[in-house]
Amino acid sequence: MSFVPVAPDCDFPIQNLPYGVFSPKGSEKKRVGVAIGDYVLDLSVMETEGLFEGFDAACFHDSSLNRFMAQGPKAWATARATIQRLLSADVPTLRDNEALRQRSLIPLQSVRMHLPAKVGDYTDFYSSREHATNVGRMFRGEDNALQPNWLHLPVGYHGRSSSLVPSGTSVRRPYGQLQADKTDPSKGSVHEPCRVLDYELEMAFFVGPSNNLGEPIPMSKAESHIFGVVLMNDWSARDIQKWEYVPLGPFGAKNFATTISPWVVPLAALEPFRCEPSFGPVQKDPTPLPYITDPNYARGTYDINLNVAIKPEGSEKAYTVTKSNFRNMYWNMKQQLVHHTVTGCNMQPGDLLGSGTISGSTDDSLGSMLELSWQGTREVALGDSGLKRKFLQDGDTVAVTGFCQGDGYRIGFGPCDGKILPAQL
Amino acid sequence: MSFVPVAPDCDFPIQNLPYGVFSPKGSEKKRVGVAIGDYVLDLSVMETEGLFEGFDAACFHDSSLNRFMAQGPKAWATARATIQRLLSADVPTLRDNEALRQRSLIPLQSVRMHLPAKVGDYTDFYSSREHATNVGRMFRGEDNALQPNWLHLPVGYHGRSSSLVPSGTSVRRPYGQLQADKTDPSKGSVHEPCRVLDYELEMAFFVGPSNNLGEPIPMSKAESHIFGVVLMNDWSARDIQKWEYVPLGPFGAKNFATTISPWVVPLAALEPFRCEPSFGPVQKDPTPLPYITDPNYARGTYDINLNVAIKPEGSEKAYTVTKSNFRNMYWNMKQQLVHHTVTGCNMQPGDLLGSGTISGSTDDSLGSMLELSWQGTREVALGDSGLKRKFLQDGDTVAVTGFCQGDGYRIGFGPCDGKILPAQL
Repeated sequence: MSFVPVAPDCDFPIQNLPYGVFSPKGSEKKRVGVAIGDYVLDLSVMETEGLFEGFDAACFHDSSLNRFMAQGPKAWATARATIQRLLSADVPTLRDNEALRQRSLIPLQSVRMHLPAKVGDYTDFYSSREHATNVGRMFRGEDNALQPNWLHLPVGYHGRSSSLVPSGTSVRRPYGQLQADKTDPSKGSVHEPCRVLDYELEMAFFVGPSNNLGEPIPMSKAESHIFGVVLMNDWSARDIQKWEYVPLGPFGAKNFATTISPWVVPLAALEPFRCEPSFGPVQKDPTPLPYITDPNYARGTYDINLNVAIKPEGSEKAYTVTKSNFRNMYWNMKQQLVHHTVTGCNMQPGDLLGSGTISGSTDDSLGSMLELSWQGTREVALGDSGLKRKFLQDGDTVAVTGFCQGDGYRIGFGPCDGKILPAQL
Repeated sequence: MSFVPVAPDCDFPIQNLPYGVFSPKGSEKKRVGVAIGDYVLDLSVMETEGLFEGFDAACFHDSSLNRFMAQGPKAWATARATIQRLLSADVPTLRDNEALRQRSLIPLQSVRMHLPAKVGDYTDFYSSREHATNVGRMFRGEDNALQPNWLHLPVGYHGRSSSLVPSGTSVRRPYGQLQADKTDPSKGSVHEPCRVLDYELEMAFFVGPSNNLGEPIPMSKAESHIFGVVLMNDWSARDIQKWEYVPLGPFGAKNFATTISPWVVPLAALEPFRCEPSFGPVQKDPTPLPYITDPNYARGTYDINLNVAIKPEGSEKAYTVTKSNFRNMYWNMKQQLVHHTVTGCNMQPGDLLGSGTISGSTDDSLGSMLELSWQGTREVALGDSGLKRKFLQDGDTVAVTGFCQGDGYRIGFGPCDGKILPAQL
């Protein structure tokens, strides 16, 4: 328990303590904090007070988490234990020092959140079997839904890191090249605003310590390279994608914006929510190659409830369109990381690896409008509002949320949302 | 003319003055310099001496060119004019000050070159029509060689920036997943060293000033965002690529290493080598969409001779396998940049955009072993050595070189080479 009041449905109890980079409103100076209840604890103040030891806490004055991420699991555990102690109801250091509390505990409404890390490289995977199968059925038909490689490796591609934005950043509907005739590519293209704008429900993890170029990360060490997890909305311009993506993959269809939640939930906070060893999906047909087999496969994924809601322009209410779960992943984070480095690719602290769209097997668990509207062939109702959508409209705010349900508390991820602005030449 | 002696076939006359980041051997301190003859001029010393004005020259003490790149064409022109004056045979400032020369002119053999910039995002295009057609013929047959989008936009994909390395860095043959049966993907995969390792002859340019997210760079301003050009070898593991690349593009097949030349030749040095307006290939069938039409299309590409040679282990000689030219590009750099930002994607100073493999229309101008050996169906002779190659062997050094031939001088790019080390688990 913390001396800071935390409601049972609050995202940020003392069991969570996600890290973020913030600046108090009216200040330009970024620094590192953790969220607790409706407050952020300024870790740079804690460091100045000399309350940390056992790791290099000077990094809490940085404008990004990269230096902290680089320090690895021992430093992370030391920092977390210290912060939990400082926030504990039983420890007087902060609880009974009003002046220090005033300086270090800042209401969340009074801070601006920034990207938590300077992302060197951002990679996006494609690791939900249901999503890959759905997209395959639409574009290649039932018989060739999954490509031959899909069950053998976590398919992924390099994404654009410069256009990663934190929750709350508006997203402009992109112009781009669209096929002039929907069904006949030989008719060429037009330069117009995207007509088929979509979200993709994803999560993503930040890399901690680096590996050297030429030295793959083995499965046994993979978890020690994973710092923590955020929510992600991989905005997608489906019509731009359709025209451009052969043969080298998505490009302009994805590089106009990718939204993440600014609070990074550390793996330690997710520990109680690992899936049980009995949890499927079982990787047996085929069995992955030894280098990518995770002997603790199920324990390497997590039970995280995920939700996507659309709030139309002018509406007070947001309407849920997707209810999914992070455990709907065929390849877990460790497998993604190991495969990413199998060629010797070097990871750097702050690199971001996205899960790919997290769709489940039920109709309400599809993680994109592409799947929900089945390529625009059916309408998706926005609750009882009478409003319908096939894809996103200007003015829509898309809100991704997620939490793990504990006994009397929840580990939440905070907001991950963005509003669509109309296209503008 | 410079007071520093420069041989007629030297890459670095006073007309060139490429920028690089170096550290004198025995020192860790990186700083910015320009190459002149067999020397590097330490620009941080020039700055300390107060010899620059009109732009922020403090950036020459940096360990990367990013801050200089960010300053834009006016600052670049001012810096270049000052450096040309300082190195001129007619100007006594440096010429007649032996102590200053001793401190600022360092033999190239006595310095270590580093990556010239901290590359936030690296993009690779696919802009040689001959290369795209050749690859298409191999993989999809004569009738579908070029995909329907290829003549309408510069196809490209996001690459991996962490594994960019400067010339001279050895490259380890990667392990990866290969199709178990060459012709039958349903047989699954094996985890083995790449058997079909290749080079790709490319050039790449560095972005100067940024654009804001959501604000495309128009054609009329594109050139002012281009800082300068380097040589690039986009190492490619063809068998890994073949198995992994559907449907999201190349990933592990490319992210183990990408070599660039460490000297960035500024656009100003290439000015005399713009192609004439009459130069083809003409973009008429189809005409590109207005946003991507370059009214000065031919003048937007450059006559740069390119060469790739292979030096086998233990050989003193390197044998040329490719002779090509940068003007063999269908889409020029401005068109690549404009299309990259058409969706609003934000560029940042130091971003790197690769051309794609630069193949010409003759048999000796093919820019990869894949094309030279036509997928391994024919052997490529290494000069008169009696040695042959279908793809690269361990111990091979691949050397990319390039130059523009002026009247009595050449604008060269310096070395861009890497040696293949054997695979290692």
